[in-house]
Amino acid sequence: MIPANVLKRLRAIIGSPNLLTDNADRQCYAYDAANLIYTPEAVAFPADATEISQILQLANEYHFPVTPRGAGTGTTGGALPVQGGLILVTTRLNRILEIDPDNFIAVVQPGVITGSLKSAAAKFGLFYPPDPSSANFCTIGGNVAENAGGSAAVKYGVTRDYVLGLTVVLPTGEIIDTGVRTAKGVVGYDLTRLIVGSEGTLGVITRIILRLIPQPAARQTLLAGFTDLHFATQTVGRILQARLTPSALEFLDRTSLECVRELLPFPIPEATQALLLLEVDGHPHDVRERAEAMESFCRAQNAALVMTADGADETAKLWQARKLVSPASFKLNPHKLSEDVVVPISRIPDLVARVEAISRDAKLPILCFGHAGDGNIHINVMYDRQQVSQAQAAATAVKNIFVVVRELDGTLSGEHGIGITKSPYLGLELSAAAIDLSKRVKKAFDPHNIMNPGKIFVPPSISTGVHDI
Amino acid sequence: MIPANVLKRLRAIIGSPNLLTDNADRQCYAYDAANLIYTPEAVAFPADATEISQILQLANEYHFPVTPRGAGTGTTGGALPVQGGLILVTTRLNRILEIDPDNFIAVVQPGVITGSLKSAAAKFGLFYPPDPSSANFCTIGGNVAENAGGSAAVKYGVTRDYVLGLTVVLPTGEIIDTGVRTAKGVVGYDLTRLIVGSEGTLGVITRIILRLIPQPAARQTLLAGFTDLHFATQTVGRILQARLTPSALEFLDRTSLECVRELLPFPIPEATQALLLLEVDGHPHDVRERAEAMESFCRAQNAALVMTADGADETAKLWQARKLVSPASFKLNPHKLSEDVVVPISRIPDLVARVEAISRDAKLPILCFGHAGDGNIHINVMYDRQQVSQAQAAATAVKNIFVVVRELDGTLSGEHGIGITKSPYLGLELSAAAIDLSKRVKKAFDPHNIMNPGKIFVPPSISTGVHDI
Repeated sequence: MIPANVLKRLRAIIGSPNLLTDNADRQCYAYDAANLIYTPEAVAFPADATEISQILQLANEYHFPVTPRGAGTGTTGGALPVQGGLILVTTRLNRILEIDPDNFIAVVQPGVITGSLKSAAAKFGLFYPPDPSSANFCTIGGNVAENAGGSAAVKYGVTRDYVLGLTVVLPTGEIIDTGVRTAKGVVGYDLTRLIVGSEGTLGVITRIILRLIPQPAARQTLLAGFTDLHFATQTVGRILQARLTPSALEFLDRTSLECVRELLPFPIPEATQALLLLEVDGHPHDVRERAEAMESFCRAQNAALVMTADGADETAKLWQARKLVSPASFKLNPHKLSEDVVVPISRIPDLVARVEAISRDAKLPILCFGHAGDGNIHINVMYDRQQVSQAQAAATAVKNIFVVVRELDGTLSGEHGIGITKSPYLGLELSAAAIDLSKRVKKAFDPHNIMNPGKIFVPPSISTGVHDI
Repeated sequence: MIPANVLKRLRAIIGSPNLLTDNADRQCYAYDAANLIYTPEAVAFPADATEISQILQLANEYHFPVTPRGAGTGTTGGALPVQGGLILVTTRLNRILEIDPDNFIAVVQPGVITGSLKSAAAKFGLFYPPDPSSANFCTIGGNVAENAGGSAAVKYGVTRDYVLGLTVVLPTGEIIDTGVRTAKGVVGYDLTRLIVGSEGTLGVITRIILRLIPQPAARQTLLAGFTDLHFATQTVGRILQARLTPSALEFLDRTSLECVRELLPFPIPEATQALLLLEVDGHPHDVRERAEAMESFCRAQNAALVMTADGADETAKLWQARKLVSPASFKLNPHKLSEDVVVPISRIPDLVARVEAISRDAKLPILCFGHAGDGNIHINVMYDRQQVSQAQAAATAVKNIFVVVRELDGTLSGEHGIGITKSPYLGLELSAAAIDLSKRVKKAFDPHNIMNPGKIFVPPSISTGVHDI
């Protein structure tokens, strides 16, 4: 519990209006996209790194947990105060400090919406490629903390590949700069990339230096429907093997397709069992040639449907097939366990086949869709929490999926992180020695374990206001 | 000192022929490209991770230093046993374990020569882009330890950007796997990239999983000579601003040019004050268009010379202008202090102008050349160690260069690392809090400080066989 006198000191640091302690206010910051509830004791909206430093110094003195939060769009519970304490919201640190077109750099505060950064860069003909599905409402600080990915990762990589440097308030209150604002830099340990993806457990990010690249001159989108899933996954492999370098290569299995079919503004032939959404970008000649080659590959695999987009409106229309899957999935069942495993591309057909078997065993619908081009498959196990047997079957299905993923040389998470929802399975991927080492690294940053405790390595405490809806 | 009974146990672990203790043998492993000498007490050639684990366990028991070494091509003293102890050479771990063209992955041991990996990948139509100048003799393990770069970094990034996962023997002897063999992965802290660039201080790398990309279909090289340095540096900015995405954009200042002029197989007009070496790669249409655009930019800046290469032989001929600089520089003076600072691209003209002033003050020739496209400028201060005043002037010049680089928002090192030669200047770039944190991270890995001690953070001990030639 945060004592009353400490709350008073917090108010003195950030100003009374910026500390919420009313029950109704606290409930607004009790959940994120993991669909779980953990109510914080208080919610703070600091203005800058100095205030954050003072807050963390207090937390060290009084040993209360501090959980940083951007927009709360994470799906593994990274922003949940599982051990109570303070939620530290970055909303007020929401300025794009600088876009430097001469040096292809942006400097931003963590509360900037990712989509705003992308638009601001585009005005200079520059491109910030990472594009998590939540780009229009997630924050860049959260993206850095989770190392967010997206559809463009198949060509352009993930958030990590664009972070050059950070300002971070350490859990002990020191404010440090890491990294560089140049293209290269190898001075000292790579603290920048250690903090990227550390899920808010190693400090609070207050400033981010990002690399930008030139906007591609042209882009072409295609949607292809296949009468057999294997035709679709084979097409993925052939497109990559032919070095066509797609800037998106997304897929939907039959269950995903059935969720969105009725919602789409264009008809999908009845026999279609799987969809691929393909995009190429770059030099106009090159885009045309590669788009034609992709279309040929699809037709050679008996595609029942190939649509190409002309202009932004048609492109957006084709993308609906992919973007509607996640919201539409709830028509199958009211709850989901959402995983984002990755396997080597050549093992995608094995993965999908084995997930189908797991779905049959569990008697639950399981959707496979997502970033086929980099092997990062979103697997959604749909169930009803009210039915105990379904909840158990869903949990068992997830465990079985992870075991299969490891057998296929894959990883448990490509972009969502571990948070609390995957933390029980960490040992399926990391050895005891690697976990012990990581805990020692955590301790080097955070000796009193005040910074987002209960994440990644340990199952959450169920003693502090834990309430699973 | 390593006690005699410990040497006996080392022999038992790796076999007598694989432990060298003769004085003559030890001298062969007493230097690297930093041009300094520190003689090790013994030199070990282990066969695999298990033997390395046993060696490190012994080192922990008896507290002797272990310094890992690839080919010894590092320029900041990373492979020098500055506190004595054992040199651990990775020569016997020299196998390419796997090239997986379906998944664009290579798995290699650390002693593989970087050039061999590049050739092996090329046989599959795949490309491993990092190209340190020493690619034909340096090892990939050393590249990972130092986060090596090269000319292609302007388009393709550095070694870090290609490392997906590692097997590492921790200083305490545990063997851990880090990272993934998939395109994405965010499970736990990013130990992979913490170890990349850690200069052999956090463990011994025994296996590396690397990302490969498609070989570009076409490539074009140009050499341009300018009558004024500012025309050259302006051309760099304009080419980048025009989004021409060169795959190399190297420059030579007048002093560098004078070193190589007589050695080149083609004449350079007398009035030439600076050279640019430019390369584009990719789709053939695109390459042709961009090469033509680059040529126009050069001619618009009054280039006195523009040569384009046709075929591999001519390409190699043009590259000689760049590759001969470093060896040819010794005709100016017998010794050099070689720095590899980076500044934002727009600050290159400022940097070169201020280095010219420093050169005048120091009364020493200073060369500026290298990777203009990413701001990574190699600055070589040429002097004669036998002349005390020159040695002092050279050291002062380096210090002044670093101060200027920091004023220009730059970094002390883009690809060479800190080692021992830059360690006195670390505080010019990292705050005390960042350095303290890094030392705590080091301690989390290496509680007894046996792994390459005396590097990065602390000036080398001068008590143990130190001998500066």
